[in-house]
Amino acid sequence: MKYTLYIGNKNYSTWSMRPWVVMKYFDIPFNEKLVKFDSFADDSLFKKTMLAVSKYGTVPILIDGDLVISDSLAICEYLAEKHGDLALWPADPKKRAIARSLVAKMHSGFQAIRTYLPMNIEAEFPQVGQIILRDHLEVKKEIMFLDDLLSSSLASKKSSCDYLFGNFSIADAFYAPLCLRLKNYHIATSSSVSNYIDIICNTKGIKDWINEALQERSFVAMDEPYRLQR
Amino acid sequence: MKYTLYIGNKNYSTWSMRPWVVMKYFDIPFNEKLVKFDSFADDSLFKKTMLAVSKYGTVPILIDGDLVISDSLAICEYLAEKHGDLALWPADPKKRAIARSLVAKMHSGFQAIRTYLPMNIEAEFPQVGQIILRDHLEVKKEIMFLDDLLSSSLASKKSSCDYLFGNFSIADAFYAPLCLRLKNYHIATSSSVSNYIDIICNTKGIKDWINEALQERSFVAMDEPYRLQR
Ligand SMILES: N[C@@H](CCC(=O)N[C@@H](CS)C(=O)NCC(=O)O)C(=O)O
Ligand SMILES: N[C@@H](CCC(=O)N[C@@H](CS)C(=O)NCC(=O)O)C(=O)O
Repeated sequence: MKYTLYIGNKNYSTWSMRPWVVMKYFDIPFNEKLVKFDSFADDSLFKKTMLAVSKYGTVPILIDGDLVISDSLAICEYLAEKHGDLALWPADPKKRAIARSLVAKMHSGFQAIRTYLPMNIEAEFPQVGQIILRDHLEVKKEIMFLDDLLSSSLASKKSSCDYLFGNFSIADAFYAPLCLRLKNYHIATSSSVSNYIDIICNTKGIKDWINEALQERSFVAMDEPYRLQR
Repeated sequence: MKYTLYIGNKNYSTWSMRPWVVMKYFDIPFNEKLVKFDSFADDSLFKKTMLAVSKYGTVPILIDGDLVISDSLAICEYLAEKHGDLALWPADPKKRAIARSLVAKMHSGFQAIRTYLPMNIEAEFPQVGQIILRDHLEVKKEIMFLDDLLSSSLASKKSSCDYLFGNFSIADAFYAPLCLRLKNYHIATSSSVSNYIDIICNTKGIKDWINEALQERSFVAMDEPYRLQR
């Protein structure tokens, strides 16, 4: 039986993007169910729909038969175990541990970036980026840390592959939405990170996600603090 | 070579507590390095010490030879892989997926509880608990969700064991600090959760952590929003 993956709008939903991209990259077939964001209020259509699927009431959710898995990271761990031959995580145990640290940081941290620079694939906000950096020291600090984290990971791998741990892995999928934020808010980065952002945008799976996001025509106010319409 | 685990104050540091408890419960030997909190400012002694260990600058950190692993969850995943015989996660793949969802929720969520009800093992704050519940709807909602999550997990396991997935696992270690918060702020819970909290407090590893926390004599102002001294 095929997997089913519940996701939100491709233009906005960073957490949905991560397992979707992993499954596309590694050719793991699944049915997609896109539940559009209206709002996250208790009586929103999105919330009612997702609460009927899982008590967590969030996207992404992976369905495998009678198993309902909530959370982007728990889903990726499940897929990594089920498809052990595909090396969704780096094959080397030490690299895998470092990759999981990186992913855990993304999963629980970068709060200021997530608050002030929401992903919005369709839009470009160069001025907003400058203003946010000017007014929110926390965002600036997180971006410096992010750049350091990515560039040292890129520098330390001994292979000529382009990804954080050589071959594409869950770690790259977790950092892909951050790359899109840096790009769309025109945030300056080190050259190795700029180069990595280009590679990410041209990666199988990620490219498809971006293209499908660009075809969406929804405007979701709660995800658009910086404008009133497209 | 033995592991080294860097942790913060036992009275306050919830993230440190999780891998520490897992290692004690499963008899995985390690050297403990406790780095006392002064503050998390860039020039604090804590921050300077931890930044010399890892660029993440947080606790917990696990050292295994030349490998430096940041983050409570990444550490637990590493230990689960290295000690596959010990079943740190539930052995059944489906249960393991559900356990990882639960842990991921704790790792990334419950922000309001984490903000307003900081862990403070040594103290009891029944009035504060009531006031926080009165003034912060978000805390109330999260506590209802938490109770639902724990009690349905406790109800669904078919074994007579007391833990979330039958035997003690990483999931219980992740929810232990929340149990201590519920207890010390006298937050009312369903009877199955109250019962679970008692079991948690008497669990090997957790009991030791609590006892050692009670022997600490530090007062860390940033972790004590509700009083000026002990
Ligand atoms: N830690 C979760 C976060 C999931 C999440 O917050 N998803 C958002 C959409 S991107 C959501 O469904 N929010 C609904 C809500 O917060 O009520 C994960 O990694 O899957
Ligand atoms: N997601 C991390 C969080 C670790 C964390 O924030 N630890 C706190 C102490 S409990 C810390 O070291 N904070 C220092 C800081 O935020 O600068 C984990 O699970 O290990």
